[in-house]
Amino acid sequence: MDFLTTIEEMKTIYRQSLLKDNGSIRRENDAEHSWHICMYALILREYAPKGTDIFKCIKMLLIHDLVEIYAGDTYLYDEKANSDKREREELSAQKLYSSLGEQGEELKALWLEFDEDKTLEAQFANACDRLQPIILNYRSKGEKWKENNIHVSQVIEKGRWNTRNVDEKVRQFVLRLLNECVEKGYLLP
Amino acid sequence: MDFLTTIEEMKTIYRQSLLKDNGSIRRENDAEHSWHICMYALILREYAPKGTDIFKCIKMLLIHDLVEIYAGDTYLYDEKANSDKREREELSAQKLYSSLGEQGEELKALWLEFDEDKTLEAQFANACDRLQPIILNYRSKGEKWKENNIHVSQVIEKGRWNTRNVDEKVRQFVLRLLNECVEKGYLLP
Repeated sequence: MDFLTTIEEMKTIYRQSLLKDNGSIRRENDAEHSWHICMYALILREYAPKGTDIFKCIKMLLIHDLVEIYAGDTYLYDEKANSDKREREELSAQKLYSSLGEQGEELKALWLEFDEDKTLEAQFANACDRLQPIILNYRSKGEKWKENNIHVSQVIEKGRWNTRNVDEKVRQFVLRLLNECVEKGYLLP
Repeated sequence: MDFLTTIEEMKTIYRQSLLKDNGSIRRENDAEHSWHICMYALILREYAPKGTDIFKCIKMLLIHDLVEIYAGDTYLYDEKANSDKREREELSAQKLYSSLGEQGEELKALWLEFDEDKTLEAQFANACDRLQPIILNYRSKGEKWKENNIHVSQVIEKGRWNTRNVDEKVRQFVLRLLNECVEKGYLLP
C-alpha cells in the first residue's frame, strides 16, 4: 500500500506534451501518458510482431516512467539532461523497488528490458511510447517542437523509426505523418 | 488512430477523488484513475483468487471508464444520477466501440463483464476500482465523503465488501480502514 501511495506522484509529474483540457491547454502528466500508451498497445496489438507478449508490453508501459518519481521527466531532445539520465534513473529504481522484494526485482527487470529496447516486447512498447507524443505534437500544431527547434531527423533518430522492428504499415504511417509535420512547419526539415 | 485520439478525453473527465498536485488540491481524472488501478491490480495480484487472469483484469481496468466519454462521471453515491447510468453508458459504449469492428466487440464485452461484477476477473478488478478511491478519500481526510454526508454502510454496500470474492486479508484491511475513517470523522457511522 505504501508503494501504491508513493506512485500517486506520477499524477503530478508533467511532460512536454500538450493537451486541451476544458478550454485551456496544459501539459500531460506521467499517469495520463502511461494509461494512454497502454491503450495504444492494446488497440494496435495486431501490428506487433508475431510472438509478442502484449501483457508484458502493457506491464512495461504501466511502470516505465515510475523512475521519474525520483529522477524527474527528462525531455527527449535535451542532450545535457539526457547525459546523466540513466544514472539518475538507476538510483531512482533502486529507491523505488527495494521495498517490494521479489516483485520489485521483477518490475526493475521489466524497466531495464524496456530501456534497452531490444526484445520484441520492449520494441513494441517503445514504439507506442514514441508514437503517442508524435500524435499529441501533431494535434497541438507542433508547439513544443517549434519552441525547441526540433528537426524531423531528431524525431526519427530518437524513435529509431528507420531501424525499429515494427510493422511496415506503422513505420510508413509515422514517416508520412512526420513528413506532413515538416510541410506544415511543425518540425524543421 | 481516431479511437486513440477520441479517448484522450479521459484526461479531462474529473472524478470526485481529490489529490495533491504541486501544492494545490485538485480532482483526479479518469486517465489517472485508470492507470492507478491497473497498478493496484498488478501489485496486489497475489491477493487475487487462484485462477484469476490478471491480464484480463488489467484490460478491464484500462477500458472500464471509457463509457464516461459520452456518459460523464457518475458519483457512486448519487442515487438519482445512478438510476439512468446504465442506459447512458450503454448508448455511450455503442457510439464508442462501433468504429472498432471485432476489437470493439471484445472491449464492449469486457466492459459488460466488469459491470456485472460476477467473474473472478470482474470481482478482482472491481475490488481495485473500489479500493483506490477509499485510499484517496482517507488521504484527503474524507473531504468529499463529509461534503456528501456519506455513511460507512454506503461505502461497504457499494463496494460489496461483505460479499465480494476477495482475499480475506484485503477484506479485513478495507473494513479496518473504514472503521478508522469513522473514528476520525471522515465517514458517518
